[in-house]
Amino acid sequence: MTNYDDKSYLEKVDKWWRAANYISVAQMYLKDNPLLRKELSSEDVKLTPIGHWGTISGQNFIYAHLNRVINKYDLDMFYIEGPGHGGQVMVSNSFIDGSYSELYPEITPDEAGLKQLCKIFSFPGGIASHAAPETPGSIHEGGELGYSLSHATGAILDNPNLIAATVVGDGEAETGPLAAGWFSNTFINPVNDGAVLPILYLNGGKIHNPTILERKTNEELMDMFNGLGWTPIFVGGTDPEVVHPQMAKKLDEAIELIKNIQTEARKHPAEEATQAKWPVLIVRIPKGWTGPKEWNGEPVEGGFRAHQVPIPVTGKDMTTAPYLVEWLESYKPEELFDEKGYIKAEIRAISPKGHRRMSMNPVTNAGIVEKMNTADWRQHALDIGQPGEIIAQDMIELGKYAADLIKENPKNFRIFGPDETKSNRLQHVFDATNRQWLGRVNKEYDEWISPVGRVIDSQLSEHQAEGFLEGYVLTGRHGFFASYESFLRVVDSMITQHFKWLRKSKTHAPWRKNYPSLNLIATSTVFQQDHNGYTHQDPGLLTHLAEKTPEFIREYLPADTNSLLAVMDKSLRDEDKINLIVSSKHPRPQFYSADEAQELVEKGYKVIDWASTDNGETPDVVIAAAGTEPNLEALAAISILNKAFPEMKIRFINIVDILKLRHPDVDARGLTDDEFNNLFTTDKPIIFAFHGYEGMIRDMFFKRQNHHISIHGYRENGDITTPFDMRVLSELDRFHLAKDAAEAVYGDAAGAFKEKMLDTVAYHTDYIRKHGSDIPEVLDWKWESLTK
Amino acid sequence: MTNYDDKSYLEKVDKWWRAANYISVAQMYLKDNPLLRKELSSEDVKLTPIGHWGTISGQNFIYAHLNRVINKYDLDMFYIEGPGHGGQVMVSNSFIDGSYSELYPEITPDEAGLKQLCKIFSFPGGIASHAAPETPGSIHEGGELGYSLSHATGAILDNPNLIAATVVGDGEAETGPLAAGWFSNTFINPVNDGAVLPILYLNGGKIHNPTILERKTNEELMDMFNGLGWTPIFVGGTDPEVVHPQMAKKLDEAIELIKNIQTEARKHPAEEATQAKWPVLIVRIPKGWTGPKEWNGEPVEGGFRAHQVPIPVTGKDMTTAPYLVEWLESYKPEELFDEKGYIKAEIRAISPKGHRRMSMNPVTNAGIVEKMNTADWRQHALDIGQPGEIIAQDMIELGKYAADLIKENPKNFRIFGPDETKSNRLQHVFDATNRQWLGRVNKEYDEWISPVGRVIDSQLSEHQAEGFLEGYVLTGRHGFFASYESFLRVVDSMITQHFKWLRKSKTHAPWRKNYPSLNLIATSTVFQQDHNGYTHQDPGLLTHLAEKTPEFIREYLPADTNSLLAVMDKSLRDEDKINLIVSSKHPRPQFYSADEAQELVEKGYKVIDWASTDNGETPDVVIAAAGTEPNLEALAAISILNKAFPEMKIRFINIVDILKLRHPDVDARGLTDDEFNNLFTTDKPIIFAFHGYEGMIRDMFFKRQNHHISIHGYRENGDITTPFDMRVLSELDRFHLAKDAAEAVYGDAAGAFKEKMLDTVAYHTDYIRKHGSDIPEVLDWKWESLTK
Repeated sequence: MTNYDDKSYLEKVDKWWRAANYISVAQMYLKDNPLLRKELSSEDVKLTPIGHWGTISGQNFIYAHLNRVINKYDLDMFYIEGPGHGGQVMVSNSFIDGSYSELYPEITPDEAGLKQLCKIFSFPGGIASHAAPETPGSIHEGGELGYSLSHATGAILDNPNLIAATVVGDGEAETGPLAAGWFSNTFINPVNDGAVLPILYLNGGKIHNPTILERKTNEELMDMFNGLGWTPIFVGGTDPEVVHPQMAKKLDEAIELIKNIQTEARKHPAEEATQAKWPVLIVRIPKGWTGPKEWNGEPVEGGFRAHQVPIPVTGKDMTTAPYLVEWLESYKPEELFDEKGYIKAEIRAISPKGHRRMSMNPVTNAGIVEKMNTADWRQHALDIGQPGEIIAQDMIELGKYAADLIKENPKNFRIFGPDETKSNRLQHVFDATNRQWLGRVNKEYDEWISPVGRVIDSQLSEHQAEGFLEGYVLTGRHGFFASYESFLRVVDSMITQHFKWLRKSKTHAPWRKNYPSLNLIATSTVFQQDHNGYTHQDPGLLTHLAEKTPEFIREYLPADTNSLLAVMDKSLRDEDKINLIVSSKHPRPQFYSADEAQELVEKGYKVIDWASTDNGETPDVVIAAAGTEPNLEALAAISILNKAFPEMKIRFINIVDILKLRHPDVDARGLTDDEFNNLFTTDKPIIFAFHGYEGMIRDMFFKRQNHHISIHGYRENGDITTPFDMRVLSELDRFHLAKDAAEAVYGDAAGAFKEKMLDTVAYHTDYIRKHGSDIPEVLDWKWESLTK
Repeated sequence: MTNYDDKSYLEKVDKWWRAANYISVAQMYLKDNPLLRKELSSEDVKLTPIGHWGTISGQNFIYAHLNRVINKYDLDMFYIEGPGHGGQVMVSNSFIDGSYSELYPEITPDEAGLKQLCKIFSFPGGIASHAAPETPGSIHEGGELGYSLSHATGAILDNPNLIAATVVGDGEAETGPLAAGWFSNTFINPVNDGAVLPILYLNGGKIHNPTILERKTNEELMDMFNGLGWTPIFVGGTDPEVVHPQMAKKLDEAIELIKNIQTEARKHPAEEATQAKWPVLIVRIPKGWTGPKEWNGEPVEGGFRAHQVPIPVTGKDMTTAPYLVEWLESYKPEELFDEKGYIKAEIRAISPKGHRRMSMNPVTNAGIVEKMNTADWRQHALDIGQPGEIIAQDMIELGKYAADLIKENPKNFRIFGPDETKSNRLQHVFDATNRQWLGRVNKEYDEWISPVGRVIDSQLSEHQAEGFLEGYVLTGRHGFFASYESFLRVVDSMITQHFKWLRKSKTHAPWRKNYPSLNLIATSTVFQQDHNGYTHQDPGLLTHLAEKTPEFIREYLPADTNSLLAVMDKSLRDEDKINLIVSSKHPRPQFYSADEAQELVEKGYKVIDWASTDNGETPDVVIAAAGTEPNLEALAAISILNKAFPEMKIRFINIVDILKLRHPDVDARGLTDDEFNNLFTTDKPIIFAFHGYEGMIRDMFFKRQNHHISIHGYRENGDITTPFDMRVLSELDRFHLAKDAAEAVYGDAAGAFKEKMLDTVAYHTDYIRKHGSDIPEVLDWKWESLTK
């Protein structure tokens, strides 16, 4: 039996650590001669060594010790690297454990491979300086900081044996998202879910500043984490000989606490579980540990000066090269590498094996673990009859479908949100499940709160909801995040980083499986915010995401329930996408049959024959709509126009997949010029009603022939006001649309009609200002078949 | 002498509270008969009562007690309402203290005024359901949650006598930004700055969930806040008779602790101050306190069911009206209002007076307290000589100018950032000041750290930096926030909310003074991220802000140092704007003289004669550039073109104020069609080199005549690579630009030249992949005068 606690084992751990440090330093500086088997020459050194040193050795230390507990306890564990700029850590460790060469056979596990590994690190066309998609074992990139705990939590949900060893940098710990991430212990069920083991790495320096938490005393940190519901366990020191045994002991303590919590909890049903006081390991070891102590008379180790490249040697200036050699040799490479540059067998011997290696844990390359069963959305399709006849709330109907999805996918589908599931009208999901919440309960008061549930929405934080979902899909499961449209923008940049991860996975990590899509439902939209008003009005995520690489972005604007259900079915089956789905939650007339909805979603748009009067001929005007209220108002405008001008030939197009209108030069999925011209004509006026900002449509039409377009989108005129008034403020209401269409077709001859339309608007506006509500008829309006 | 502690005084506080509650409930429901002086009829009730109740009475309670301590201690205090949806709180209290009628004379302080106040609340064309710009005394809106502590901290900096009484909701406390906001105690100097008094209001419910902090025990909260460096003081209960005296005692304790901290600290120089353990008041009183206890057999008071409108009475359905009447009468209005509906004199008597009223504290309507002295930027202008001859780092030069600004404005100008001041090359500001940091110091290690300093950048949080700056400018001071370009997007939505505040201030609060502009410097830009790579590349804030109302948004793309300095001078003097300034920090050739820079900034663009070969005639091609690298590459392309095609007539335009290119239909400041056509011609090819995403330029050109344009912007092809390669990846490099220009002018006849350009690109790319760096000549390139 291996004794994992005796000195000789820890000496091997130390050797592993030294090997990782050696390789990490070499990656920063060298492009050749990585083992210093000959004298270091300027040919061996990169012209501009780049990368970071500060966080490396401390993380390598933690990584080596995690390997030890994986072996000792046979753990299913993976590594999340919270600190930024620690790219070498996971690369070096996966090179030592052999996985790097397995995934990238050109990087052989010998001197030649090491040379190549050094060269490509943080090098044009090479590998990133963070734990990127191309990094074995990573699901989390350290570029934009703050999401490590959220990703970790998302990953361990429904993975009861998994431990996410999550290093949190003391810089990262100062961000908002990370600070809110400590609350995630409220949502982890110790029976059904795995465990997050946060390892707060207090190295004391950021880029140029001390860190707030490192300057706190252990007593203060003890209080803080106890209060936050964690069990703090401290490790610290500067002498490896002292810290090694301490780290081993304390890490054992943390693992045993996790196991005890789980063992005890698992004696009872998951429904009876309570919030555990999970361990957090607080590791106070110096930034730039084992590197240069000082440089130019200023201290380096222990703070911000160790952040980047501490010795200024370059291929062009070798003056300080002896210091680099001394540094590298301090790790005693002769004890670590054999003659051919292979890691020595005694070091390799303490590597976890196969999938126990954190770099090869299947959870970190989940792809589609299990395809989702999207059930049959048509079971919930509304029977439309006459279009516009019935009124329903799209999000309520989606909630019913989502309840089915929960039943069909009991272990790999979840819904996330910031306290908005019911406000967003998804309450029927609670027919099938509860909110997962492990905190204290008030049985007389709480609603749909349970230790077990497929909805996690009890923390008011978009960052957490988005981060949980990201962690969940990055580990191969499915779900959606439903949010107020305007507050999805709180996580603009998180969504961008997820997109970047998807993209680089495809271009830089061919071994990665496909990911289930990240599904974002934007509801409580700009066009109905009666009492919330202007702060809650922003449809700009459409433009934001449309700027990213088309392959990975879909934007759907379903105008009614059936369209929404068909969109959800498609989105949940799709892979490697970010799907933005904009949906109304309020009572709205329903228009499209299940078949029409299916066609709308598959093709992305559809000429609606029953709402068109062109009989397939060249129309006088094309009216297009994307979005619930645009579709509704456009149809209402058409019925007004048809009554006033029965001879007017109108073609109506509903658009669900808005990005398909882009030119193929911009988006390969975009309609060809022929298709586009057939649809919109080359010269007839177009009235375009759009849910978002108008610039996005101008951009889309720029490369098209027909610029005879009048766009009615959100014009940033928000307020506390009625639904109809919100449309009027952007001239997206039926009267303004009808007026524009008549003007476009008849010019001055439409003068009287235009006047009438504007008078009607004024009449409505006056009513609204007086009564505080819309004229009921305008909201209860029903579509009538057109005069033919 | 008034005895503020005896029972009779607290009875008056209770009456104030009841009056505020009464008015708050009336605002939700009534449009007439506000004092129930006749029987309540359906005519009196709003058709759709909207608003929120949950947070109201608790905050009214806190507000009333804050008034008491203002009187007792003669405090300079104002109120920040962190919880969302509490619009009635500050409105009701300012109605009672008379300030509402002073600012809005049509709202008389009697029954007629009260009727009108009720009607306009959360009503179309009326006032918001949050503490909005139109709310007296507010600098902070509760729409998007999380920023109360950051705003409070920004406000009290350099206001040593000011106390920001900051109510933090227990929902808000779950957001990332708020959770990181507790660290702001690290930056408050007890000598020079005022105090933030956080009042954590644990009412136990959000929209539909319990709250994480309310479900913690007082012991846990004690630990948490002690660990975070605050002194927790607890208040709680459900019986007003018990809670009133407790609240008075504990609030006194908090105020006295603040005073003691300040008095002790102020015995010594500010430079010797240390971090104080400021009080945090933790108030555990029920959500919906004093409202309906239950409804339909379900409990209301004490949790989420109290969040919105608890009794479903409307103008259309009066069935439940008696419950509303009972509720309103429970406040005993006959004790609160006199015959004419005035607040009774004994209640008014305990109002703080004049500017001591929180609603009238001048800090909350700061406008320009003191105009900034922007010194003379030309003192730091670079002497250009031959354009392109010298190389400088724009941000380094800005740092020198900023040091002057700090010296000239020692009390009303600050710089904020997320640990990036030095990384963004502003280090010369540290010639004039330090970083303000009150935490523990390590004198041997720390750099430019001091208890007194004009830079606050020691917390790695864009939310905090943005929030501090917002609080600082909303109280009439000046500053900027310099950030990595890509990570400004972390605060996309915060910037949007600040814009919304500015806009509504203009349209809804005519009494508000102008605000100093919010200045955002986006540097470490997409086009040079050598070792940071793809995660650090996103210029999309340009598009994001361009979607907002033009009046309030400026976007500057200075291409060199002199342009940047001139932009900063203008931005710091401007009012009511959000200025986005995109600047390079790396060594770049310098082109524009101080005079040219001044013209570029004043006019927004300039035809650069020395870089043009059209001699004022109709050009063959227009080359336009916005941004540092676009400008540099465009000039390099022109010199290549001029050598290859000396006869080619090129007009070169540098654009600094990019939004001026918009059509006047979109932006009133936009160039007229004549101006635009004179500049860009109506039919000649345009090569447009742009720092941002290309869709923004397509949008801008949509309404213009000349669509013969080839746009070269950021094409989302990011990577870890060299500066020049980044340009190549977006075809924004000189060779691609020159190729496109030649093709546009000469068509097929340019075939050989085009080949040569593409070959040259390939040569560069090969070199970069091999050496990991650019061919030095490409970066050291110097502009040569054109062959004429």
